[in-house]
Amino acid sequence: MCSFNMRLFNKVVIIGVGLIGGSIGLGIKKRKLAKQVIGISRHKKTINSAKARGAIDFGYLDLSAVSQADLIVLATPINSIIQLGLKISPLVKPDALITDAGSTKKLIVKALEKILPNFVGAHPLAGSEKQGVMNAQADLFCRSLCVLTPTAKTSKAALNMIKRFWMELGAGIVYLSPGRHDKFISYVSQLPHIVAFSLIQSVPHNSLYLASTGLRDTTRIAASAALLWKDILFTNSENILDALEIFSRSLSRIKSAIKQKDAQALERILRQARQKRQNLGLE
Amino acid sequence: MCSFNMRLFNKVVIIGVGLIGGSIGLGIKKRKLAKQVIGISRHKKTINSAKARGAIDFGYLDLSAVSQADLIVLATPINSIIQLGLKISPLVKPDALITDAGSTKKLIVKALEKILPNFVGAHPLAGSEKQGVMNAQADLFCRSLCVLTPTAKTSKAALNMIKRFWMELGAGIVYLSPGRHDKFISYVSQLPHIVAFSLIQSVPHNSLYLASTGLRDTTRIAASAALLWKDILFTNSENILDALEIFSRSLSRIKSAIKQKDAQALERILRQARQKRQNLGLE
Repeated sequence: MCSFNMRLFNKVVIIGVGLIGGSIGLGIKKRKLAKQVIGISRHKKTINSAKARGAIDFGYLDLSAVSQADLIVLATPINSIIQLGLKISPLVKPDALITDAGSTKKLIVKALEKILPNFVGAHPLAGSEKQGVMNAQADLFCRSLCVLTPTAKTSKAALNMIKRFWMELGAGIVYLSPGRHDKFISYVSQLPHIVAFSLIQSVPHNSLYLASTGLRDTTRIAASAALLWKDILFTNSENILDALEIFSRSLSRIKSAIKQKDAQALERILRQARQKRQNLGLE
Repeated sequence: MCSFNMRLFNKVVIIGVGLIGGSIGLGIKKRKLAKQVIGISRHKKTINSAKARGAIDFGYLDLSAVSQADLIVLATPINSIIQLGLKISPLVKPDALITDAGSTKKLIVKALEKILPNFVGAHPLAGSEKQGVMNAQADLFCRSLCVLTPTAKTSKAALNMIKRFWMELGAGIVYLSPGRHDKFISYVSQLPHIVAFSLIQSVPHNSLYLASTGLRDTTRIAASAALLWKDILFTNSENILDALEIFSRSLSRIKSAIKQKDAQALERILRQARQKRQNLGLE
């Protein structure tokens, strides 16, 4: 269900071939979506790994290859996406499509849609706490959602092709404005990360050996890359601070119920939580 | 590695044949640790399910069967363990061994070691957010830890046999005083549950459809049984309130770093969290 085998592009250039960029490359290769996949990285080692994994055909340390691309995917850490967009804008073909994989969208879309007329912001909701092209998977996006964040300025033709591209990689497509995306994602992704970071930090070292699946699951994403997440959190701080406020209120309600031995209140909260989690479905 | 096939007991009575009691029954049967496994439940339906699953040989709605038992396992929800211990104490053979599977130990051990001389408190650190004997597994305890909480009053002979019993079910044994157990477990089990309950409650309904593996994993245990967890939280409230305090401080540190755009502080915290989570090892 996840492969259609239809060539969409001649040359795709992926800038940043880590977990996400590498998985995009592997996904394109597996489904033969492009004749050629070119990877760009600042590190020779990364290019070699990406080639060895079969995620790219050729790799370069500089940006000049973007001039031949039909599709350019900005798959670097979030704090370099805007700069890269600015750098490639004088180099790209006028009809080249550009998309990205940044976890927050408002700042990126605002900056890049001005200078790259065929830019369509994207956030594939797939990933892992494990970094690097060695953890990349051709099917990483299969059965996941990819949020596209078109605006009034977005070219309809570009949107259709970018939608097609992410769909062929296996993702279901969701449209949200950049602002709504950033608000929603602060709750479903960034808040859980902050909670996981805080949780693992609160557990005293002398009790860690007792950790069972409960603590392991709740803190798995605390092993996510620090540098990457620092930048993600900074690019969406307003929404995140709101989400933290809401979370603190939820926590306070449970705390009060425990403190006051209010069995009815506590049971009601836990029942609601259970119901809501069960409605999430699918394990 | 998990089965030794050595009969330890003639008759084992398990009171409460849900996920834990049912898994104990299945584990005993699989490893032939007893000649006969008897289940006691307040519900005929539960007994029928347990029999159908092969977790028990016979089942009863009343407690009289404990009088024939060599080993009695109290595997009911935490708030009925003490009452059950009191009820069976005049019925049991003088040399019958008694253990339990309650998630907090101080109150239970204090109450039961007075009246049941061969009682050894236990907390198997295995389980699931899924309840009931239909989710029971013969190998639920394999490669997990089981905390035993002997005190100065605990019979050495009883401790040895109870240790042997949990080991044969596949668990590694850890000794802790009831007090230390309750303190440690508030961090590694009860705090993650409260955090998961609060987290799922804070996510607005209109963004839940975007939930990816991050939110799913961090909130999996929020689907745990409300009634059960209400009682667990109430029996360890002092330690839990301490743990919540520590957690809130961790959370505040991240919040401040985001608010003040303190990149250095945020990166340091996330790096520490990552390191600590990675040291937990094993996925």
